[in-house]
Amino acid sequence: MQTVTSTEASSENAAVSARADAFVADLQEWLRIPSISADPGHHDDVARSAAWLAERLRAEGWPQVEVWDDTDALPAVFASWPAADPAAPTVLVYGHHDVQPADLADGWSFAPFEPEVVGEELRGRGASDDKGHLAMVRLGVAAHLAATGADGPAVHLKLLAEGEEESGSAHLGSLLAAHRDALACDAIVVTDTGMVDRDAPTVCTGMRGMVDTEIVFRGASVDLHSGQFGGAVPNPATELARLVAALHDDQGRVQVPGFYDDVRLPADAERAAWAALPFDEPAWLAKSAAGAQATAGEAGWSTYERLWARPTAEVNGLHGGYGGPGHKTIVPHSATAKLTFRLVADQDPARVLDGIRAFVDAHTPPGITAELIAGGPGVPPLICDVDSTLVTTIREAMGAALGAEVLPAREGGSGPEALLSTELAAPLAFLGVMLPSDRIHAPDERAVLPLLLAGAEATAHLWRLLGERGV
Amino acid sequence: MQTVTSTEASSENAAVSARADAFVADLQEWLRIPSISADPGHHDDVARSAAWLAERLRAEGWPQVEVWDDTDALPAVFASWPAADPAAPTVLVYGHHDVQPADLADGWSFAPFEPEVVGEELRGRGASDDKGHLAMVRLGVAAHLAATGADGPAVHLKLLAEGEEESGSAHLGSLLAAHRDALACDAIVVTDTGMVDRDAPTVCTGMRGMVDTEIVFRGASVDLHSGQFGGAVPNPATELARLVAALHDDQGRVQVPGFYDDVRLPADAERAAWAALPFDEPAWLAKSAAGAQATAGEAGWSTYERLWARPTAEVNGLHGGYGGPGHKTIVPHSATAKLTFRLVADQDPARVLDGIRAFVDAHTPPGITAELIAGGPGVPPLICDVDSTLVTTIREAMGAALGAEVLPAREGGSGPEALLSTELAAPLAFLGVMLPSDRIHAPDERAVLPLLLAGAEATAHLWRLLGERGV
Repeated sequence: MQTVTSTEASSENAAVSARADAFVADLQEWLRIPSISADPGHHDDVARSAAWLAERLRAEGWPQVEVWDDTDALPAVFASWPAADPAAPTVLVYGHHDVQPADLADGWSFAPFEPEVVGEELRGRGASDDKGHLAMVRLGVAAHLAATGADGPAVHLKLLAEGEEESGSAHLGSLLAAHRDALACDAIVVTDTGMVDRDAPTVCTGMRGMVDTEIVFRGASVDLHSGQFGGAVPNPATELARLVAALHDDQGRVQVPGFYDDVRLPADAERAAWAALPFDEPAWLAKSAAGAQATAGEAGWSTYERLWARPTAEVNGLHGGYGGPGHKTIVPHSATAKLTFRLVADQDPARVLDGIRAFVDAHTPPGITAELIAGGPGVPPLICDVDSTLVTTIREAMGAALGAEVLPAREGGSGPEALLSTELAAPLAFLGVMLPSDRIHAPDERAVLPLLLAGAEATAHLWRLLGERGV
Repeated sequence: MQTVTSTEASSENAAVSARADAFVADLQEWLRIPSISADPGHHDDVARSAAWLAERLRAEGWPQVEVWDDTDALPAVFASWPAADPAAPTVLVYGHHDVQPADLADGWSFAPFEPEVVGEELRGRGASDDKGHLAMVRLGVAAHLAATGADGPAVHLKLLAEGEEESGSAHLGSLLAAHRDALACDAIVVTDTGMVDRDAPTVCTGMRGMVDTEIVFRGASVDLHSGQFGGAVPNPATELARLVAALHDDQGRVQVPGFYDDVRLPADAERAAWAALPFDEPAWLAKSAAGAQATAGEAGWSTYERLWARPTAEVNGLHGGYGGPGHKTIVPHSATAKLTFRLVADQDPARVLDGIRAFVDAHTPPGITAELIAGGPGVPPLICDVDSTLVTTIREAMGAALGAEVLPAREGGSGPEALLSTELAAPLAFLGVMLPSDRIHAPDERAVLPLLLAGAEATAHLWRLLGERGV
């Protein structure tokens, strides 16, 4: 691995440091706008947040800045800054300026939209996810330009800040289609992920896809008296439990037909890197997994491998019959299971859904009518080429900023990355410094300011290095 | 089988006929009192119903009539009428004067507490269950006395009308204990059951017992993100589904340890009698089982056998995780199953509960904490001696009144009968003429008046025959 030239890195570092105080004040201002996309009552705030960001980007010198509100999507912000060298590659940075809902009553110990600095931390909704990361990228661009003294960055830079990622990116496809030319790029860098631990810096190199389904089993047209009918007619709750129980074998392998056919195994080198990451199971269970009592899952794989490289079938909800106090002696007329399946490369959501359909058919007994409701087309998995210049340069840039080797890791969640990469026909990689302790999507979200500053320095390094090497 | 002497039977029949109009008017008056024991807002009505019944019994000549409200039980009515012959056996009739809840909004096509006669039917809540049946017994006593011209019945008669059977008979044990001497008897006749079909008159000879339980599986302390944790920690909903699925083998046999150890098989003669009963499966599914699509259950047994002579494990409710619209990508922190087990002779609720405890222990995986909540001590099953004088005389008396052979049958539900028989140390039998079409516990309850009158005639025959034969 090449090392970052120390003189240039030092000036980028100095440029970040010089702007640190302004960075924090500026980010606090942005965090005061409650841009909650899931709540229509806050859609005006999403628009305010977009306008705020556009105004700041213009002030920072970006030559082209637009608020996109010409589709059904909530307002997105697009900006571009051409490189001095027309032959330079084009890199699109993706992030989002909307935030998760936040209500004091959910258990916040501080006001979510009155951000404050406590020690190294900036506390507030969006401090990490994702306003903090978009601010980090802006700071990195400013530092890069200050260090080089040039009019434009070393690569053609584009920035897309989506306005409804936290509510499911329902209109991202239309947004990308409507602005395909503006968004054309050679590579995409997503700044919305994190690291395994502050002491174990990592770069995300993949996310799982998803298929979501609801299965309804119906028996009689009404609940039946369990004394008069119990034992003589099928019980939809019992039968659905049998289907759910059949989803996994005793080794934890998902029994949906063909489920593993397209699964790409992680490379030996990647598994070795994951094995080198620290993993303190009791600490992970107590802190990350919120008091879970044990790890469990598919036999033969470590916890990280189960989360990052193996597909799953998960019951998100199971409901049928009486749920009130005491008992009610009925045979329920129906029962429902909400299931999500996390997918890994190279599983295809449509093929997996076909398999689920076959599985439900095979596990519907006589006397039960089954309905399978698919929640949409599903989310394809995304995996980065860990040996690509893009990924190795990100690791190098982050390593220089953090002063430590940055190992590849993945995340188990699902996002719009595969859609971005496919629609824009460009390779995609991640650069983010969130920590599990940032409590994103939860009460008391915070960001670690030194990490955001290091992340800004890493992006400054990155633009320079990609300008030298291409993507 | 002996036949009822036709002269005596004729005068009992005539005495019933002569009182038919008054019987209907009187019962309608009683049905106007909404004595819903499950609703505290109607407890005054339960007391009014008890007072009404006591007043009527006095008017009908019962020498001893009392309203019992000296325990925590809602008011019960007790009456006794000594036989002329002090050596005659004592028979206690048990029924209840409270009714199930009834609300027009539940789908009634007539006002539940404004009873009316339509053709052969008397429509209204309680018309069949159980005021109609208690009125039937009162009419039978009057007819018996009119036919014999004696001052007292041929047996010492006692009557207990409970006031909270429909809300679970929670205080029946205390009531029986507080009045053990008054209730002392040689036999108990319960008038709160029905027949398989109007064209297939039957006498109930057994009811199932019950154990009710709730099983809670807990994992993490909060719902976890299924992307961040799915596949790496146990899912309580999945694991509980696996426990539920393991409750039955593929032959429908319950897998609770020792579950069948104490099960008494029905005698060959009883099975033969059941096999002789008409059973039109499509009609039964469409009408009785409210649109159930197929019969199902333990292999090797008919539908009647499954309902009457085989114990069951039934899921009444299964709940865990998200149940709202759309999907929510969580690993639920807990899941709950409400299970009732119907028992048959000679299963013991306490022993069955021990088995359930062992079953839950055996099916709780690592990382899951299980809690088993028992709903109470359970209800023992009750089975009559079908060859006893009591049961054969009831069959004979009903047969004479209905003009058809009366076959033995059972019911699949659970009631306080075992408690009555045990606490009062007396054999128990059933005499009732409810039909599946009476819609008891459901909207549009009704009784078939000619059957109530025939039932009254059957009880008139019964007192005379038991006076001759003893119990």
